[in-house]
Amino acid sequence: MTRQLHLNLFIHGRGHHEASWRHPRSTGEALTDIGYFQKLATTAERGKFDSMFLADHLTLSTELEHRAAAGLEPITTLAALAGATSRLGLIATASATFTEPFNLARQFASVDHISGGRAGWNIVTSWSKGVERNFGHDEPIPHDERYVRAHEYLEVVTALWDSWADDAVVDDPSTGVYVDRSKIREIDHRGTFQQVRGPLNLPRSPQGHPVLVQAGSSGPGRDFAARFAEAVFTAHMHVGTAREFYTDLKARVRGRGRDEQSLLVLPGISPILGSTEAEAEQLRAELQELSLSSVGLAHLSARFGGADLSHLDLEQRLTTDDLPDPGSVQGAQSRARLIADFVRAEKPTLRELLEKLAGARGHFVVVGSPEKIADVMEEWFTGGAADGFNVMPPLLPASLDDFVEYVVPLLQRRGLFRREYTGTTLRDHYGLARPAST
Amino acid sequence: MTRQLHLNLFIHGRGHHEASWRHPRSTGEALTDIGYFQKLATTAERGKFDSMFLADHLTLSTELEHRAAAGLEPITTLAALAGATSRLGLIATASATFTEPFNLARQFASVDHISGGRAGWNIVTSWSKGVERNFGHDEPIPHDERYVRAHEYLEVVTALWDSWADDAVVDDPSTGVYVDRSKIREIDHRGTFQQVRGPLNLPRSPQGHPVLVQAGSSGPGRDFAARFAEAVFTAHMHVGTAREFYTDLKARVRGRGRDEQSLLVLPGISPILGSTEAEAEQLRAELQELSLSSVGLAHLSARFGGADLSHLDLEQRLTTDDLPDPGSVQGAQSRARLIADFVRAEKPTLRELLEKLAGARGHFVVVGSPEKIADVMEEWFTGGAADGFNVMPPLLPASLDDFVEYVVPLLQRRGLFRREYTGTTLRDHYGLARPAST
Repeated sequence: MTRQLHLNLFIHGRGHHEASWRHPRSTGEALTDIGYFQKLATTAERGKFDSMFLADHLTLSTELEHRAAAGLEPITTLAALAGATSRLGLIATASATFTEPFNLARQFASVDHISGGRAGWNIVTSWSKGVERNFGHDEPIPHDERYVRAHEYLEVVTALWDSWADDAVVDDPSTGVYVDRSKIREIDHRGTFQQVRGPLNLPRSPQGHPVLVQAGSSGPGRDFAARFAEAVFTAHMHVGTAREFYTDLKARVRGRGRDEQSLLVLPGISPILGSTEAEAEQLRAELQELSLSSVGLAHLSARFGGADLSHLDLEQRLTTDDLPDPGSVQGAQSRARLIADFVRAEKPTLRELLEKLAGARGHFVVVGSPEKIADVMEEWFTGGAADGFNVMPPLLPASLDDFVEYVVPLLQRRGLFRREYTGTTLRDHYGLARPAST
Repeated sequence: MTRQLHLNLFIHGRGHHEASWRHPRSTGEALTDIGYFQKLATTAERGKFDSMFLADHLTLSTELEHRAAAGLEPITTLAALAGATSRLGLIATASATFTEPFNLARQFASVDHISGGRAGWNIVTSWSKGVERNFGHDEPIPHDERYVRAHEYLEVVTALWDSWADDAVVDDPSTGVYVDRSKIREIDHRGTFQQVRGPLNLPRSPQGHPVLVQAGSSGPGRDFAARFAEAVFTAHMHVGTAREFYTDLKARVRGRGRDEQSLLVLPGISPILGSTEAEAEQLRAELQELSLSSVGLAHLSARFGGADLSHLDLEQRLTTDDLPDPGSVQGAQSRARLIADFVRAEKPTLRELLEKLAGARGHFVVVGSPEKIADVMEEWFTGGAADGFNVMPPLLPASLDDFVEYVVPLLQRRGLFRREYTGTTLRDHYGLARPAST
């Protein structure tokens, strides 16, 4: 079969553009209303998306005062969405730093059972400033140590998922044997950060392991992805850096002895769509008009570890000296680096930089007609920059509706995207093997 | 309005009788199949039950080899059941010892949003032997310390639930104000076992606080219940001890300055039901016939902190000297004490004791026609022993179906139980006030 692209819907507030909730097309549903998420998920499923995804931070957003955010907890939301969908992969973010691994392994396995094999875990190491104080730590855990912890954490979680053989449940009423105890094993993990005996108290899940997703693109993040991840969400402002990232990450995957198809690279794309170029441009301008510079500045500050940027003037042309060194940021280093690279290359004013980030926080924004958006996606996909996309509609649900109605059929007509699901699990959609129970 | 009783469905494997899964009426659904739980929940809702409840242990059951157990994780299950029901209260067990309080507070608040105000949390301190080893501890946390921790834990969780005022979300696109930041507060908890800054990253939930449920009946357990609980599940073999417990707990609640109606006492009842006494007795005998003494002995041992009881003979008449001192048990002391009291009073053989516990692990088992079961419930309810019941069908779903078809209508005809829901939240059903946001 021809190679086809993969589409993940990234659900974020009322859309990825920071002013989305203020736009007249915003429908204003509460972010605590599961019906809103069900509507988005069923639309994505109608559009034959591989999956949908919920981001997460374990703190209040610094932009919250002026930005629609703070909604349902992702894992419980996935469980509730399972019943409203039948094919769509369901991916939630959860922290490998601030959750007990036994609880996390169990909840994701449970969602995998509940959804019939559609669960995915987006692994984060929780970079938001102050998150540690919600979990008993006075000081942030340094960037590189978070990844050291995450490696160990993944060893524990995957071992727990494998602690039951697939055929451990015998369930024979006639003999009275419910499980074959010899097929359930303790994991006896005694490491630096984790001591977990196991086994898990739940039979192995339909996918064996829920799909492992990751988004950190720093050096340690890429090493981690090359070892564990099966899909990677990544942010690029240009196809060039996306191609470099794609090439580098696939090489690291091969370097780990893995098939490079066992990891999908899915860059973010935020399509600002109109039936014509002019209509799309108008939507972009409307969203820009509704943006508040205070929101953009709070976001930029958060991306640089909470640095005080209040002395900067909106009309001031920036240099990298105006921003902290990305290498010193204890948050998400790769995103800080992406922003610094943009400043170095383009020398924007602060206003221009904030405008650039308002659409999708540093992900690729494309403004145009359905044809133009399909062209760009095809270019990235066939040009060695992407295995598919993390689709970030600027307005939700409106821009998702438009994407499913106008862009998906074009991709299908070009043979780039499925017309029907051919499998039932997220592993089926992503073309990933089911890990054997060892 | 006349006082009416409250009914909670306690879902446990394929029924509460330890041999239920071997009985011909067992339907054999996988315990990882959400459809099974949805069927039970919708039946309970058809029967106008207040709520349903999932127990939990964070380890493998020692009886697992010969007993249908080990299914879905409770919190994710609740979230998935919310969409299949519209009125039924949804209660899950979660550990106040082995879960990060920020995560727990957030997930229960999220389920409360998802279900439109139907969530309840059964607070346990995790007594199962060996559970600590799944969470980084080499040694069990002693019984009384678990309760000291639980008090602090509840202070943190309830403060997190109150960290957003009910009207904190402004959501005004015209002004660009999404939340009123002055109505969201840090909790800044710095205690002995927990340091949590907060606030929660989720708006206050429909019930303010999910309903707090508790089941420990030891001295420290009762103190804890009198302070925090709004419903208490409790095990009694006789109406006499149930009445003593009821009187004592209500006095403790008043002693805390609370209205005694702000805490419901719900003893367990396992109705072995037949259309006639003879038919019920036959079902009891069939279940007994299918029981394995090894399962019963493993359960008894677990109840006494994993004590080795293998030297005891099935036909041996027991005295309390044959069992460890309940006060020394680091597990659930009240259940050990209940068993010791039974041994002291009845001097059963080991076989008789195991038979007594096989039905519902020390909860009250009543064998008989619908009329007899309704009579017993009325007697307990009007006789100062219960505000309602934790209904523990011996076979699931069969005995639940029978209960809803034959017993519920009798209770309704006697004016003891609702014919229709009059509210939408679990607090509505239980007659509990919604905590004000402070």
